[in-house]
Parts: sequence; C-alpha cells; structure tokens
Amino acid sequence: MSLVERLESVDKSGIDTPALLIDLDAMEGNIAKMAKYFRSVKAKLRPHAKTHKTPIIAHKQIEAGARGITCAKLGEAEVMATAGIRDILIANQVVGRQKIERLMRLAKHSDVIVALDDLGNARDLSSAALRVGIKLNVLIEVDVGMARCGVEPGKPTLNLATDVLRLPGLRFRGLMGYEGHTVFMEPFEKRREECTKAMKLLIGTMDTLEDTGIGVEIVSAGGTGTYNISGEYPGVTEIQAGSYVLLDSKYKTIVPEFDCALTVLATVISKPTPDRAIVDMGMKAITSEFGIPQPKGVDGAELTRLSEEHGKLQLKNPSTPINVGDRLEFVPTHCCTTINLHDKFYGVRGDRLETIWDIPGRGRFQ
Amino acid sequence: MSLVERLESVDKSGIDTPALLIDLDAMEGNIAKMAKYFRSVKAKLRPHAKTHKTPIIAHKQIEAGARGITCAKLGEAEVMATAGIRDILIANQVVGRQKIERLMRLAKHSDVIVALDDLGNARDLSSAALRVGIKLNVLIEVDVGMARCGVEPGKPTLNLATDVLRLPGLRFRGLMGYEGHTVFMEPFEKRREECTKAMKLLIGTMDTLEDTGIGVEIVSAGGTGTYNISGEYPGVTEIQAGSYVLLDSKYKTIVPEFDCALTVLATVISKPTPDRAIVDMGMKAITSEFGIPQPKGVDGAELTRLSEEHGKLQLKNPSTPINVGDRLEFVPTHCCTTINLHDKFYGVRGDRLETIWDIPGRGRFQ
Repeated sequence: MSLVERLESVDKSGIDTPALLIDLDAMEGNIAKMAKYFRSVKAKLRPHAKTHKTPIIAHKQIEAGARGITCAKLGEAEVMATAGIRDILIANQVVGRQKIERLMRLAKHSDVIVALDDLGNARDLSSAALRVGIKLNVLIEVDVGMARCGVEPGKPTLNLATDVLRLPGLRFRGLMGYEGHTVFMEPFEKRREECTKAMKLLIGTMDTLEDTGIGVEIVSAGGTGTYNISGEYPGVTEIQAGSYVLLDSKYKTIVPEFDCALTVLATVISKPTPDRAIVDMGMKAITSEFGIPQPKGVDGAELTRLSEEHGKLQLKNPSTPINVGDRLEFVPTHCCTTINLHDKFYGVRGDRLETIWDIPGRGRFQ
Repeated sequence: MSLVERLESVDKSGIDTPALLIDLDAMEGNIAKMAKYFRSVKAKLRPHAKTHKTPIIAHKQIEAGARGITCAKLGEAEVMATAGIRDILIANQVVGRQKIERLMRLAKHSDVIVALDDLGNARDLSSAALRVGIKLNVLIEVDVGMARCGVEPGKPTLNLATDVLRLPGLRFRGLMGYEGHTVFMEPFEKRREECTKAMKLLIGTMDTLEDTGIGVEIVSAGGTGTYNISGEYPGVTEIQAGSYVLLDSKYKTIVPEFDCALTVLATVISKPTPDRAIVDMGMKAITSEFGIPQPKGVDGAELTRLSEEHGKLQLKNPSTPINVGDRLEFVPTHCCTTINLHDKFYGVRGDRLETIWDIPGRGRFQ
C-alpha cells in the first residue's frame, strides 16, 4: 500500500479527540469566494493571519490573489516570514527594546510594515532602523471609532505624520484604521452606515495629509464583517479580513455567504443519566466568550456548560441516541481564540483525513 | 562573569511581554503551607497538576509530602510520567480505542489509576489490560452533587463496583467524588455545610460497598476551596487541590491563607488619550471567564476590556503615571486556563529572574 493509499484509508474515526478539524472543501470555497470578490474591486485583500496562525493557509490565500498578509504580533510575523511569506503588515504597535531588536532582524529579510501611533515609539523605531541600516516601513494607526489604539483622525494624525516624515529610519507608507466596533452590527444597513462613518474619518484623514503634500500609498482597514463595505470605499487600498477563511457560528450570521469550515471533534466520555452526556471538550479546547458552541447535525442536544476539561450536553429527549464513545463535532463561536488553544489542524475532505498541519503561530503573542 | 552571576544580573526588565511570571517565594510558601496542613490530618494531598501542567512543580509538591499527583487528561499524565512521576491519578474517564492503547502503555511504566463511571468503558479497559498483561488500577467516580460525570451514590455505585470486581483486567481501588459545585461557595460556613453533604454521599457510598465486603482503599475528593473540609472528613484518604500552588484572584477570596504567586507581565503599547492606555495582553494571554483581571499595585487604572491581543485600561485620573513602554503585572482571575495559554513560566524572586520553565502539559488535552 502506498503512502497516499494509506492516507486515503484514514477516516475521521482515526482522529483522537479533542481535535480541531478543517473541512477543506469549505475552506477552499471561502478562499475562492473572497478572492473572486477582490478581483471585482480596487482594494486588495491582505488577510489577517491571526485567525489561522498557519503558513500553509497564508500561502493558499496569497496564491489565490491576496497581496500579502496581516499579523497581530511580531511573533506571528516571524513564523510567517520563516515560512517564506515576504509581504507582512504587523497591524499593531511594536514597543520595547527586545521587540524592536527582533523587528529589525525581521525587516532585514522581509517586506514588513508596522503600525504606530506614538512619537516616542516612532523615534525608537527610527533609531533602531538607522543602527542596522534599513528604512522601516510604517503606517500610522488612526482611531476610526473603536476607541482602542490609534491617533485621533485629522489634525492629530497629520501632526504625527509630519514628525514621522522627519525621522530618517522610517518610510511612511500610509494609514491604518480598524472599524472593529462595527463588524458585528446588525442589520447590514446599520453596519454599512457605521462602517461608512469610520471610513469617512480614515479617508478624510488621508485627504488632510495629501492636501499638505504627504503621499499616502496604503490605506489599510476592514474585517470579515465589513469587507464588502470598506472594500468598496474609495481610497481604501487593502482589507485585513481574517475570519472568513474558516469562519465561526458568530460570523456566519454576519456573512452567510461564507461557510463554517472549522469544528472541534469531541468524544462522549460519560452518560450518567438519560438526559445528560459529558464530552471531553472543555474551555481548554474551545472558547465561549462569544457564546457556548453547539453540536453540528444533532437534534435535541444542547451544550449548556463548559468547564475546564468537560462539556455538559443536555439531552432534551431521553431517546436521543448519544452514548459513551460517540463522537460529535462542535462549531466554534469564535474561531481565532479556539484555534489558539490547539497545536494541530486535521484537514478532512468528506469523511477522510487528508492532512495534518501544525499551527506554528499558536501562542506567539510576544 | 559566571553563568550564575549572569543569571543573577537579569532582572524582570529582561523579560519580554506578555509573559507568565511566578513569584517563587509565594509559590514555595503555598507548597509549604499546604504540606504542613496535610501533616496535621489523616488524608494525604494528591495535587491536581492540571493547574501548572509542569513536572518540576509537581516534583516540588511531592518532595514536600504529596502522595502523588492528579491529572485531568491522559496527555498530561504522559508528560508527568515521562518526567519521572510514578503515582498518577487520571481523575477522568479514558474513552476510545486510541486513548485506551496509550493508557496501557502508560500503565506499563507508572502506577496510574483511572476513573470510570460506565460498565462498557470498564469492559474496554479490562480487555485492553488483559491483552497487555496488566491489572489496571481504577476508581469509580461518584456524582456527589456536581451533576457532571459520575455514578449516582449508593446502590448504583455498588452495582457498578460489583461488576467491575468481576472484570479480570481491573483492580478496583476505591471511589472518587469531586464536590466542584461547592468549592466557591461563600461564606465558609455555607461551603462547609454543602461540602459536608457531598462527603456524606461519598463516604455513605463507601460504607455501602464495605458492608457488602468490597474493600475501598482510596477515597479521593476535594479542591482548593474545600481542602480543609473534605480533608478532615473521616474516610476521605486524599485531596486533589490544585490551584493553591499558584492561586488566582478568585480563589484568593476563598482561601486567603494562600498567596497569589502568578501574574501576567504586559507592556503599555499605546496611550491614545489621557484616560486610556492599551497593553499587549489580550484573550490569548490571560483568561476572563471568572472576571476581568486587574493590574497589581496600580491605583486609578482599571482593565475594562480584553480583545484578542489588547487590554484596555481606563485611567481614572489623567495624571495616573502610565505611559507607552511601561510594564504592568496583572493577577489572573483563573490560573488554570491562563497557564494553558502560555508555553513558559518565568520564575522570579523579588525583582530577579531566577529560572525559566517550559510548560509541557499545556494543550495536552487529548
């Protein structure tokens, strides 16, 4: 039997639990659908790799047309660069001596861009870049209404940009603004309205800069919930959507055109009473900050509680055929944090296990 | 400069962030205090390693007098056995072909005991043990009121014990009952009352078995919140407390005699407004299911929100001296799940970094 034949002979029942499964058909469909959308608009896709944390998926997104990737942390960017991905935006501030030293080493071997929103940090980055003899690409993060990081739009951003342009180690590339406060708004019309307000602030700031002769080459924004709003707003050059590639049940209600490609496979380890079954999946294998995940394709069984190592299923009908040893799949409510709990993806096609991928960006939050 | 001198010259400022710190003095104090308590009662301590997931800490607990350790999952038990720990209770059901095969390999090289609550599972374990020529140590898990896993107390447990005794691959060692529904009850009197009810069910079941001539050598129970209630209940032979060793702010209110030895060190990466600062610690570096963690030793700054990679601090007074580049420590509200997000402990004594420990049990939920 050849290796390929042996792999093809492994079905899902050969996967131990808890395990994180990717439905490869669904993932490939999501990648193709998003790529097709971005062929129809001016903006480019720069998918956020904080979702999957896995270079092979990033490469698939780039092969389908993405201009590069986005990372949340320097540690993730290092993982991606090591795997041969060159065009990387770290959509976050890189602060502190150790991290700035690592950033300089990374910038020597990839086309990294980093966000900043503070002049002191900008000076530190510039000095470090001068020491190693590079020009570091930077974007200024603008607060477009999320009230997290970012400079106020308009004049305060212009002031910082003016200062940044005087720093010899930095190459000012443009602006970044994440409309994270709008990505889950419903209905779509409200989301469009609030997201549009945010993009007006961002592009208005771009105009302020350009009016004074400052070139703004990149305007980076967007998430999975707003890709088709920000992605069509004139002046936005790239969209950082990440969750679309694997999705979760929360985003499924927001962008139903994508499919849930991710599940956690669990085993029933106890059935103490006819109306209660316990699975081997708790808070350490699936997250619940966006709601308690539910089993896929099972009627009359509701996951009511996650403890650290256990999930408690309430069986509404005592005849629900769920017994010790049975295996159930649960759809995460938040894909990014659930993936962060796992070391491997099990890629399945239909009922067959096709591939196992390490998740080298997991836990790379430094 | 010798290696020791170099290590002594590293202070906390050499640790990149986010990072999980152990105050070694506090941890050693907790280990000594719990060991002293267990020298004063008949029951023994079998600390739960699901908290720290780290063999060197388990070895320290055993050196201080613990009879062995408790694990939540087979994967954790494998890590501990590989590090030379022999007496391991897996306080959970081990279900499924792959896991039972691994359990048999583990049992060949350590004194492992496993919980069960289902006759079908007991038969599978017995058959596997016979195949490899061992007798597998088992406890029956009794539901003492938590309504998770476990057989009903009294007659149902007697029936299962009678069946288990007939299975030639198993060695019945006793009972386990976790009073998890009582460990956080306040005030202490209410906790004592409800915990005592649970222990009555467990020891009553032991009596039922012993009345029919079934020997019950081990009765395993308890958690950090009830160690000094279950630990004194006549008939209970061992207590599975785990969190006491590092503690968290939730347990601190329950067992103030132990100290919070664990913090997450974070860096301020942005201060967009005088009343808002953002740290580089989000849901991927600290958990919040038991409440949002707060900074240690800082007045007038409240962590109000965790997103995936960011923590948002509300500064009540604009003159609060918190600026970009500052480093703050946060006390986890739930130690077990926070540790599960990290790959390393940074052991500090005072302001010096003394040691770095890998956390090999992290993510070993299979």
